Amino acid sequence: MQKTTIHVVENILNANDRIAAQNSDRFAKNHIYAINIMASPGAGKTSFIIRTIQNIADSCRVGVIEGDTAPVTIDSEKITMAVKIPTTQINTGGNCHLDAPMVSLGLDNLPLDDLDLVMIENVGNLVCPASFKLGNNKNVLIASIPEGDDKPYKYPSMYQSVDVLIINKVDLLPYVDFKMNYFLDGVKMLNPELVHFNVSCRTGDGISEWTDWLLEQVHNQKP
Amino acid sequence: MQKTTIHVVENILNANDRIAAQNSDRFAKNHIYAINIMASPGAGKTSFIIRTIQNIADSCRVGVIEGDTAPVTIDSEKITMAVKIPTTQINTGGNCHLDAPMVSLGLDNLPLDDLDLVMIENVGNLVCPASFKLGNNKNVLIASIPEGDDKPYKYPSMYQSVDVLIINKVDLLPYVDFKMNYFLDGVKMLNPELVHFNVSCRTGDGISEWTDWLLEQVHNQKP
Repeated sequence: MQKTTIHVVENILNANDRIAAQNSDRFAKNHIYAINIMASPGAGKTSFIIRTIQNIADSCRVGVIEGDTAPVTIDSEKITMAVKIPTTQINTGGNCHLDAPMVSLGLDNLPLDDLDLVMIENVGNLVCPASFKLGNNKNVLIASIPEGDDKPYKYPSMYQSVDVLIINKVDLLPYVDFKMNYFLDGVKMLNPELVHFNVSCRTGDGISEWTDWLLEQVHNQKP
Repeated sequence: MQKTTIHVVENILNANDRIAAQNSDRFAKNHIYAINIMASPGAGKTSFIIRTIQNIADSCRVGVIEGDTAPVTIDSEKITMAVKIPTTQINTGGNCHLDAPMVSLGLDNLPLDDLDLVMIENVGNLVCPASFKLGNNKNVLIASIPEGDDKPYKYPSMYQSVDVLIINKVDLLPYVDFKMNYFLDGVKMLNPELVHFNVSCRTGDGISEWTDWLLEQVHNQKP
C-alpha cells in the first residue's frame, strides 16, 4: 500500500518536471524572465507585485499569473485596478500550491510575444510550493516581519529552495519583537548565497533596490 | 492514472478518520477536552498557547502536542520555558499538516490520566490542515491582523472548518490597513455560528475572555 502511494507521487512529480521544462522553453523562446513568488498567507505578495510593476512599467512589459485556492479574483482585481497589465487567474481547486500544468494554462492566456517579465504569485503556503518546479528563472520568497524571526528555522525547505528573499513590512519593526540578526543567521545557515532586500510595500521603502536588481536580470535575459 | 491517485487519497483519508475516532475515544475516556489550533505561519499559535496556559494553569491541567515540518524544537522549548507542562513534539517530516496517526503517537507521550485539556498546535498552513480530522473536540483558527482582512475570502475551506476564531495581534491595528467589518463579513458569510475573540498575545489583551469560554467547555466535559 505504502509502495503504491510513493509510486504515484513520483509519477506526479516527474510529469510536473516535464511540463516545467516546457514552460521554461516557452519563457526562453520569448526572451521572458519569470519569477515564482512564494510566501505565507498575508506576507504581502500582491502588494509586492503591484509596487514592483509601478516601479518598472516604463522600461519592462510585465504579465502576472495569480494562483489562489478558491475561485476568487480579489488579487487579480487588486492588480488590474492598480496597474494596467495582462493578468490571468488560476484557481487550484483547493490545492495548496501551483504546479507546472497550471502555469502552462496561465501562459496560454498571456500575450507572451509582448512581455519581458512574468511574475507568478503562488498560493500562500511555506511548505508545499517549494517542491513543485514551474519552469521560471528564479524563486522569490517574501518573509514578513510580523510573522516572527524564527521562520527560517521552522520552514527550512522553503528557505533552501529560493534565490531571492524579500523581507517585507519593515515599517512594523518598532511594534513587534523581531531580532533581525537571529533571522538572518538562520537564513545564512540554510542558504548562504541568498540575495535579500528589506522593503515595506506599504510605504514603498526599499522597492527600488529590488527593482534595480530585477531589471538587470530581465535585461541580461535579452538576446 | 488519475483514478489510481484518487483511490489512494481516499484510502489515506479513511485510515486517518479511523484513527481520529480512536483519538477521540481516548480523549473521552480520560475526560480530556482537546483543541486543534490552526493558522498561517507566524500568526501567533505558540504565543497563544503560552498565554492561554498562563491564564488557566491554576484550575486546569494542560498538555501540548507541537507539530512542526522540521525537526526543530523551538516552539516546544518556548512553551516549556514559559510554563511547566507536559509537551510533546511531532516532526511531520516535511508534511504540511498533522494527521490522526501523528496525534496518536503524541498522545502516547502525554500523561493522559493527569490532564483536563490537550492543545494541539498544527503546522502553520491555511490550506491542508483543514482536511484532516485529528479526533479533537473543537478546531480553533488564529487569524492575525497584519495578514490582512481578505483571508476569509481567499481561504474559505479553513474558515468553514473551524469552531472558534481568534483574531490576534489587535495591537497592530493602528499600523496596518485592516478593515474589521470587511473581514467579519467574510467570516459570517462562510461560518455564521463561528465564535470569535479579539486578542493580543503580545499585550495579553482579550485572553481572559477566551480562557473563560475555554474553561467552561473543559468543565462541561467532566462527568
